[in-house]
Amino acid sequence: TAACAVASELAATAPETIASFLAAYADGIEAHSEALASLAHQETGLPAPTRLAATEIPRTFNQLRLAADAVRTRSWSQPIIDTRAGLRSALGSMQKPVLIFGPNNFPLAYNAVAGSDFASAIAARNPVIAKAHPNQPGTTRLLAQIAHRAVLESGLPAATVQMVYHCTSEDGLSLCADPRLGAIGFTGSRAAGLALMAVSEPAGVPFFGELSAINPVLILPGALAGRAHALAQEYFGSCTLGSGQFCTNPGLVIVPEGEDGDAFVSAAARLFAEASPALLLSQGVMESLQRNVAALREAGAQLLGGTAQCSGPGFRFAPSLLGIDAARFLAAPETFQTEAFGPVGLIVRSPDEATTVKIIATLEGSLTGSVYSAEADRDLAQRLAVVLRPHVGRLLSNRMPTGVAVSAAMNHGGPFPSTTQRSFTAVGMPSAIARFAALQCWDHTPDHWLPVELQDSNPLSVWRVVDGVPTQGPLTPA
Amino acid sequence: TAACAVASELAATAPETIASFLAAYADGIEAHSEALASLAHQETGLPAPTRLAATEIPRTFNQLRLAADAVRTRSWSQPIIDTRAGLRSALGSMQKPVLIFGPNNFPLAYNAVAGSDFASAIAARNPVIAKAHPNQPGTTRLLAQIAHRAVLESGLPAATVQMVYHCTSEDGLSLCADPRLGAIGFTGSRAAGLALMAVSEPAGVPFFGELSAINPVLILPGALAGRAHALAQEYFGSCTLGSGQFCTNPGLVIVPEGEDGDAFVSAAARLFAEASPALLLSQGVMESLQRNVAALREAGAQLLGGTAQCSGPGFRFAPSLLGIDAARFLAAPETFQTEAFGPVGLIVRSPDEATTVKIIATLEGSLTGSVYSAEADRDLAQRLAVVLRPHVGRLLSNRMPTGVAVSAAMNHGGPFPSTTQRSFTAVGMPSAIARFAALQCWDHTPDHWLPVELQDSNPLSVWRVVDGVPTQGPLTPA
Repeated sequence: TAACAVASELAATAPETIASFLAAYADGIEAHSEALASLAHQETGLPAPTRLAATEIPRTFNQLRLAADAVRTRSWSQPIIDTRAGLRSALGSMQKPVLIFGPNNFPLAYNAVAGSDFASAIAARNPVIAKAHPNQPGTTRLLAQIAHRAVLESGLPAATVQMVYHCTSEDGLSLCADPRLGAIGFTGSRAAGLALMAVSEPAGVPFFGELSAINPVLILPGALAGRAHALAQEYFGSCTLGSGQFCTNPGLVIVPEGEDGDAFVSAAARLFAEASPALLLSQGVMESLQRNVAALREAGAQLLGGTAQCSGPGFRFAPSLLGIDAARFLAAPETFQTEAFGPVGLIVRSPDEATTVKIIATLEGSLTGSVYSAEADRDLAQRLAVVLRPHVGRLLSNRMPTGVAVSAAMNHGGPFPSTTQRSFTAVGMPSAIARFAALQCWDHTPDHWLPVELQDSNPLSVWRVVDGVPTQGPLTPA
Repeated sequence: TAACAVASELAATAPETIASFLAAYADGIEAHSEALASLAHQETGLPAPTRLAATEIPRTFNQLRLAADAVRTRSWSQPIIDTRAGLRSALGSMQKPVLIFGPNNFPLAYNAVAGSDFASAIAARNPVIAKAHPNQPGTTRLLAQIAHRAVLESGLPAATVQMVYHCTSEDGLSLCADPRLGAIGFTGSRAAGLALMAVSEPAGVPFFGELSAINPVLILPGALAGRAHALAQEYFGSCTLGSGQFCTNPGLVIVPEGEDGDAFVSAAARLFAEASPALLLSQGVMESLQRNVAALREAGAQLLGGTAQCSGPGFRFAPSLLGIDAARFLAAPETFQTEAFGPVGLIVRSPDEATTVKIIATLEGSLTGSVYSAEADRDLAQRLAVVLRPHVGRLLSNRMPTGVAVSAAMNHGGPFPSTTQRSFTAVGMPSAIARFAALQCWDHTPDHWLPVELQDSNPLSVWRVVDGVPTQGPLTPA
């Protein structure tokens, strides 16, 4: 109710004011880096200096600054003008609150009250209702306090940003089913996401969910020749980065049968076996990992390296590598795509291209897919890239998927079930803002009704498509 | 199954081949204009020479030709390149079938096997499964035959275009719940649309529904001064065009109390009263219109002009004007937004700006909203345009909403429940194609893996955003 009450005021606010809020909030986060890193470390176990202070916090305030730039330059609004038809269109504010659920694994850069969904929703001039992740109450409270101060300093209405600590499942469901919402941004588990989407969509509330992904990696024979150990190291590094708790974690690797493949697998198995138990985000993550690894093993996956055991102190799990042959994988492909969220990888051995194609055909939608190849694999790599393409949002060549650059050309998104809307990205400015916008057309309206990016004079030199051609200039009378 | 089997072949087809199919199909429709107009007239009662042959058929083949142009020029793909991050993204084929349900009111331009949804889905290189509207079996069969011939002539796989005549509700629901679908395009009733969406979304199949709209029109005092009769004529013309069976029909008009408003209302009432009964699309449309008009009257709407009666021969309804005062409207705003699909209008009289604002606040999302104003209303018009903006997809000034131009700047879309996805348009090339596309990112991949619009050399001079700046040139090495 409070968010709805300020939605139109917010939509009518000068973009410069929105941008100044985003910038002030970014500055506030930067100024509180130390306290945020310390709180987030206490609540997630993620290393404070390297992961949080040096990487995730800068990512968070940079993302807010990029959103501020996008607001100032209107680069997210995609203006189109058809002078003959008298029509102008652009993305504008939905003028409705966006409800955001953040994930457990990024206490800052995806936090419901500070991450990319937040920055995107505010950039599109919508109020935000942020649901704090239960494992990050302190971090989220401090972020919300910094946000609240920046809201007031910028002169925005206080209800622009609201934060909910906790609610029951029932309250969460009725919140999601509220037709006054404009959209929901959700990053989390597939089961929770689908349950919330099932009530939001019938109420007319689009659900932008990022749910789960196994991020397949194909390693081709040429890539392995002489590089099996180096690739095993690269794979191990990516698979255990952040204790394997990334949405772009390489969960499934398809490795050719034969000597080079064997060398890769045994080198990787050794690395997993030698690694110390990895600290996990929470007891829930540990238990779910244990359950899913057990399910994979029960279905026939062999333990190749590591003990697949929990241990202490805290919630730890031994980095572990599982393996399966192609025939068994193909007999139960759904089971073997169970996401083991943590430092656990599954290797499928494939005898030939035809089998690899069959395996790919069974793959559910993922955020990413990688193909490792060398010059000797040139044609095979291209053929498999074509086969893999529709299953993934981002296709990588000779790269592990764990890095997600904040770029206009990024797609942190993908076919269902990796996300629920395959034509949008959750990361990257200005692209991610489009999720929380409404397409608005103006039909023969006076110039002074138009948002500045559609006005004749184009005072901000916004790039817009005029009669089919991108231009930065003003409209010139015919 | 047949559509899935050809999805990857289709996605790998040269865009020129897809374009040549769309062009050949357009030519075929043009060549069969007479037969199509005659069949569609028999099945819908719409006038063959004026509406069908002179307007809707040209719109249909022009739309297919615009889609062909968009395919050739890649104007729909929205390529973005970030040279520093090594990332390139563009919209590409979903490589999954699109299921399309067409409406009863446009037997050609929105036909499931020939309309904008069809052209968009094929332009994005997805197979189409078209569900024929039960009232248009002959028209749809002839269109499908022409399409089938064009498919074979262009060398596309036969299952690129499939057509289903009829299915039970149960079969329709299980079809929509099939996770092998990439998306559903639906134009029709709200009840049917929501029922289908309820099964498609949980299966991961995005539902692009255009459901219903009352398309509010505000008439301000200045606009009425001395023009009450002319505006009444304009309103009557728009409200009864196509027997009132347009999704952009002006169903609700807000008219000021006072003399000028009275003059408008009585002039409009006379026009409705003097009009002959209008031929409707079907018995179902007639019965539903009768039911909804009865519901409006039962709730308190007064009959101002016309008899609100059905009559023959065929399925006819007397053009009728209803009226209600603001207080009664505000007591039951949902009821008074019941869509009376046919030549029926509802006028709400408003005493002042504050009441008009209250009325607008109750309005559900619509495809369009119009504001009629004159220089004397300049400030009031702007204030009300701001209030109306979030409720509608297209905002018009001094225009009735019934014309929908096929333009890149068109938005034939709007907030729920007018559509289910407020950031997409169903009409306008290349914009409408984005609904049936997947965002695809390429991360450090070799140039020969890329679609032509992302390749370094940019041989087709596609406009693309490179490092933030739109350009048509090739990538130049740094």
